[in-house]
Formats: sequence, C-alpha cells, structure tokens
Amino acid sequence: MNELKGACIIGQSGGPTSVINASAYGVIDTALKNPNITAVYGAEHGIKGVLNDRLFDMSQEDPKELELLKYTPSSALGSCRYKIADPDVDDTDYKRILEIFKKYNVRYFFYNGGNDSMDTCNKISKYMQKVGYECRVMGVPKTIDNDLYGTDHCPGFASAAKYIATSCMEVYLDARVYDTGMIAIIEIMGRHAGWLAGAASLASAYGAGPDLIYLPEVDFDMDKFLADVERIYKEKGNCMVAVSEGIHYADGTFVSEAKTSATDGFGHAQLGGLAALLADAVKQRTGAKVRGIELSLLQRCGAHLASETDIEESFMAGKAAVENAVNGITDKMVAFERSTQDGHYVCKTKLIPLTDVANTESKVPREWINAEGNNVGKAFVDYALPLIQGEPNLPKQDSLPRFAKLKKVLAK
Amino acid sequence: MNELKGACIIGQSGGPTSVINASAYGVIDTALKNPNITAVYGAEHGIKGVLNDRLFDMSQEDPKELELLKYTPSSALGSCRYKIADPDVDDTDYKRILEIFKKYNVRYFFYNGGNDSMDTCNKISKYMQKVGYECRVMGVPKTIDNDLYGTDHCPGFASAAKYIATSCMEVYLDARVYDTGMIAIIEIMGRHAGWLAGAASLASAYGAGPDLIYLPEVDFDMDKFLADVERIYKEKGNCMVAVSEGIHYADGTFVSEAKTSATDGFGHAQLGGLAALLADAVKQRTGAKVRGIELSLLQRCGAHLASETDIEESFMAGKAAVENAVNGITDKMVAFERSTQDGHYVCKTKLIPLTDVANTESKVPREWINAEGNNVGKAFVDYALPLIQGEPNLPKQDSLPRFAKLKKVLAK
Repeated sequence: MNELKGACIIGQSGGPTSVINASAYGVIDTALKNPNITAVYGAEHGIKGVLNDRLFDMSQEDPKELELLKYTPSSALGSCRYKIADPDVDDTDYKRILEIFKKYNVRYFFYNGGNDSMDTCNKISKYMQKVGYECRVMGVPKTIDNDLYGTDHCPGFASAAKYIATSCMEVYLDARVYDTGMIAIIEIMGRHAGWLAGAASLASAYGAGPDLIYLPEVDFDMDKFLADVERIYKEKGNCMVAVSEGIHYADGTFVSEAKTSATDGFGHAQLGGLAALLADAVKQRTGAKVRGIELSLLQRCGAHLASETDIEESFMAGKAAVENAVNGITDKMVAFERSTQDGHYVCKTKLIPLTDVANTESKVPREWINAEGNNVGKAFVDYALPLIQGEPNLPKQDSLPRFAKLKKVLAK
Repeated sequence: MNELKGACIIGQSGGPTSVINASAYGVIDTALKNPNITAVYGAEHGIKGVLNDRLFDMSQEDPKELELLKYTPSSALGSCRYKIADPDVDDTDYKRILEIFKKYNVRYFFYNGGNDSMDTCNKISKYMQKVGYECRVMGVPKTIDNDLYGTDHCPGFASAAKYIATSCMEVYLDARVYDTGMIAIIEIMGRHAGWLAGAASLASAYGAGPDLIYLPEVDFDMDKFLADVERIYKEKGNCMVAVSEGIHYADGTFVSEAKTSATDGFGHAQLGGLAALLADAVKQRTGAKVRGIELSLLQRCGAHLASETDIEESFMAGKAAVENAVNGITDKMVAFERSTQDGHYVCKTKLIPLTDVANTESKVPREWINAEGNNVGKAFVDYALPLIQGEPNLPKQDSLPRFAKLKKVLAK
C-alpha cells in the first residue's frame, strides 16, 4: 500500500437531496478517524469553496451535530452549479485549486454530486495527475434523478421515490372523495430520465397510484395523452396521472416549454409549470375538475420520508470513498452493485473510472415501459421497492425535525 | 335519561383531511359497541348517500380495517359539497331524508364536516324537530382551515399545520444551498382565514421557516409585499415567504384572481396559481431565482405527517358525539376546550348549539399578527405547538402506508 498523509476536502455539488449529507457524514466521520488524514475540510459551495479559499474545519464541529447530518436534507456545506472549464482551454481554475491544495496539503479530494459534478471531479483528477501533484480524487454519487452511469442506483433516488410514492397514495385517496370525480396530474422531477416519475408506480402497485405515467424516455403525444386520460376518466370517473417534467415531443421540444407558443403566445413561461399546462389541456378536453400538482422541491428535500436503506447506503458510499482512497485508489467513483442473498436485497460498493462516468446518463430501460408508452411495468417496481425500505429514527424536537446545526469554522 | 333505540348514520362532508376518518372511526367504533344503537350506517358521499339511499352497513367491515381508519387520510365514505336548500323554500330533500330515516329507523345522525356541513346538519336537525321525528343530530367538527366557531381548534388543522411546518423547514434548507441565493414562495390553503399559513411560523420558531407570512386577515398590498421581499433578499441573500391562498386586496379581490387582468388579460386563470403569480412578480422586481411552491392537496392528505394529538382528539370528537347523543343530547356540535394542567396542554370536549356554529367563521386574532401585517407572533406559535405533538405509529406495508380497505356493503 502506498501510504499518503495529508488533508482531505469534501465538497457537495449540484441539486441537493434528502440524504446527500449522509454521504458527507460518511466521508467526514471516516476521515476524522483515519490516522493518514491529517485534517478534514468541508468546502463551502462545492468547488467554489476551494477556489475562494473557504474551507470549514470539520474537526471543530460537535460530533453529535455531525451525526445529525444523516437525517438532515439539502447540502449542509452549500452546493454550486459551477461548470469548470476545459483545462486545455483555460487552466486558471485548476492552478488556483492546486494552489489551495498545496496551501492546506490536501492529498484527498472527495466530490459528492451527479453527472456534472463527476465531470468536474474527473477533470480535477486528470489535471492533478498531469501536473504530478499526488492527490487521490474520488467521486461520491448523488442524484435523485438516478441517472449516473455504472451504478445500480444512486444515493438520493430512493428517498425521493419514497416521497413520491407515498404522496401519490395520499393524493389518490384525496382526489376521489367526491361523486363528481376528479383528474389529478402530478408533475415529478427528472429532466432527461424518468426514474422519479416511474417511482409513482410503487403507489399503483399497492392499489393507490396513477393510472398513467409518462416518462421522457418515450416521445410525448398530446392527442394520445388526452385520449388516454379521457378514456380512463369516462371508465372510472376519476383519473390520476404522473408526468416527468422532462417529457418532450418527438422533435425534442419540452412539453413545458412548448406551452408558450401553444397556449397563449405571450411568453408567460414563468406562470405555472407543466402540471398547470396539462391540467388546462385536460380540462378543456374533458370538462372535468382537474388538479395539477407539482411536487417541486418537496420531493428532493422530504427527509421525513427518507428511506433508511438510502440513508445507510449513502453513508456507505462516503465511507467507501475514504477507505479506498486511503488504500491507494484514485480517479474513481463509488458505485453500487445489487445482488440477492437468501432472497434478500444486498447492496455492495464497487468502483468505476471517473472518465467513464463523466457526462454519461443512464435512462429507464425501454422494456420496463409498456408498449403504449403510458406506464411502467412490474420490472420497475421490482427494481425500486427494495431501495425504499426502512424507516429512519428521525431526531425530533417538539415533534418537528431536529436538523444538524454546524458551526462552520473556517480553516486557518 | 331519555332512552332512544335505533340506527345511526355517519356522513362525511366538505374537503377531506388527514384525520377525518379518525373521527368517523370514533363514531363507528363507539356506535357499534352501544346497545341502544341497532345499526351503524356510513352514508356514501355525505348527505347525498342519504338522498340516494346509498348506506353502507359498517358492521360488515373487518374490525382491523376499521381501526386503520385512524391513519387513513381523506374521506373513506366519500364526501360531497352539496348545499342543501332552505326548507322553507324547498323541502324536497328534507322529505326524502325523513323517508330514508324512517325506512332504516335512523334515530341518530352524525355529520362530520366544516362550516357548510354544520349548516346542513343544523337544517336537518331543525327540520326533524319541526316535523316531530325523534332523531338526535350531532355535528362532528372537521376542517384543516380551523375556522369553525366556538371551538379552540378543529380536528384536521394540526396535522395540516405539522405538514406545513415540516415541509417549510425542509424547503428552507433546500432553498439556500447555492451562493447565488433564492426566493421561495409557499402557497398554503385557507381561503378566508390564515390559520394554515400561520402554521408556517412553527418552522420559523425553530430557525428554519419563512421570513414573511401573509394572511387573509390583513389586506394585501403588492407594493409593500415586493418591497418586503426585496429588502430581506438584499439583506440575507435569500428569502422565504408563506402566503395564504386567500390573500386579497383592500377591495376584497383575491390576489390570485386579480392576476387574470393584471398579468395578461387573457383569462388564463387555470394556468398556475397564486405562488406562480407572486413568483413572477418577485422575479421581475428582484431578478433573483424564484420558486413558487403550492402545497396543494398534499397538505390536507399528508397523513404520514399527522399529529398523534390530532388523531386522538379527532377520534375523541366522534366518540363524544355518540356518547352525548345516546345520553339524550341533540342539535349540538362537539367542540374543543383547552386548558393547562401542571403546565401541560389538556383538551376536553364541550358542546355548542348547531345554530351558533352554522356559517360563522373564526379568524386569526388581529393581535396575533404583527403590526406590519407580514408575519405572526409568539402567540400563534404558543397556540399551535401543543396541537402538533406526537408521532402516530403508522401501519406500513413494504415501507409504504397501509390504508384501510373497506368492503362498503350496502345496507338492506
């Protein structure tokens, strides 16, 4: 083993999730206990914190507050959506990062994020190799979108899926109390992949979910959609629909954007989203009472409905990143591999080259979606159900969530 | 005691809540065990089920499924929004109700609902008195809006309040992860009273809630609102706002309706709601990233975040209605009285004449709202906090809610 002593940095990047802090805690807790890691720094707002020399000394935090990170949604260190340049075009940022790494003797860099963040992580890793600065760089996966390449699933997906499934089950009951019937359209996140909208099928599998589910993996056809909804509404007197925000027409235009010209031509893209647009179209077609419901930020920060499996796996991903790095591994992302033991779901970590992960997207397999393209089948439910299992023992204060409170002491 | 033997009907009416079925279970469970009550019928879709002779025989249900009603949101028997006529103008419905009551020997009528439902309940009670048909009529309160007269609070409010407060705390963390800042506007139910929007102050009391809260009790001023938001956004770099759907200008026009003329003049009231409208106005004023989030139906059916106190009190309200009726009481609504014993919150039932309750609305006291009219104070938090206490032990199946499944066997 090639022993390397030095400080580490953990950064969080991209859209937050309910469990991204569980991964951060996995990194921080494991790193604080490792004798080869001389200091543990949290970067404020991801890579921007490195560029701005804003690093928090995690050893200054109360261990009990750090532990609460497992149950605290959103990015506790702050996040960013900073697209780092191609180093061959402009290496200013990389020189600055190297300068900061040298200043603090940073020999371990852990970056927790989705596709774009793994691209950043990969570029930094390759740059450090090129200039011969020894630093082990590891990606820690995170995205509710579940679209990272090379991993069975992504930390954060399951908790969002559980939020979506539970909320759909509750709305299902609410949206059919009147004898006059109702059509409910639930808008779910997922710009390019339909994993989250597909999670609504978990509710249907237990008898209280959408009749129809539309994913971005299949081109959207408004006439077909309206006919589908009308048919079910006429049959049942009610209809529930889940749609991915990223559904698009065959020409690639997002349905949510097409509205501007299709509906009023006055550029009011700000007012209402896809759910409101579809609700309007369905109302015009059917005359029914229609509710468009956008799960919005709630689905990615609803830690009160987190999956315990997701929390523990997110922690495990952070822990594995540190352990592998200390053991000499670099330039990899931690990924998940699923297996079955005695009929039970088992998840283990594996490692994927960062080069392979960067900017590659994983989509819902077409064969998991029905032929009509308006629902997902049993294969999806079988895939997602083990991931949402387990109720975390959420710390509460006066029956409200007790989230971690960090001091965020800047490193000297 | 004037002993009266006969059947009872329980009906649910108006918008559902997370705990309305706990009250129904309080009625059903108590009635099934009472020797004076010869049969227990659930009316399908409230009073419409009586008019249509659609009564379910509750003794046919599995007792274990009935018990799950305590944790099942929305109206399990079905609800209605049926405005019953003034009997002096048109007594058709009343004659039909009397006919059904006689057919099934109904001597006890329990109606579970809000303001309009208590009006229905009151009219039926007075009609039965007038025609000399002995039937004990009791209102069981229910409304997330918390605006029923004569009761300290209403079953259903606390669970919605807990959902709102918890969701605000989670969104608060999410909406400030980026160094670029964000303004989040949360739209909360409450057409005429601001109890629900005020509940967002519970989140603020624990350090993660709205900076500004606007209730319908105070006339809305768009210029003042935009100036408030801009000031806080400039000071803090972020701003979170809670608004009641019922906020209105001084002339009484709802802000959500004014949009049609104010914004585009093309009558697109369907597209987006108040949150989207305000988000658009704030974006134009500040240039900030703005998210409008409508809690929509989620807040009234989010049983996974129900207050155990609310569940138990809702059950107690149903139970008290039956016990009082059997003991000779009629023409009343069950209400709640709060007291403090050894520093602890205690809630007991009392009875209010239906005549007093019907169509009277209770609003947030003006002195609980700050002078500027853009927040609520400590008095509101002190009022609401005891109500949201306690976590129900929710029945789950594969980590998803296990809701009651009723057979709904029609009475013969």
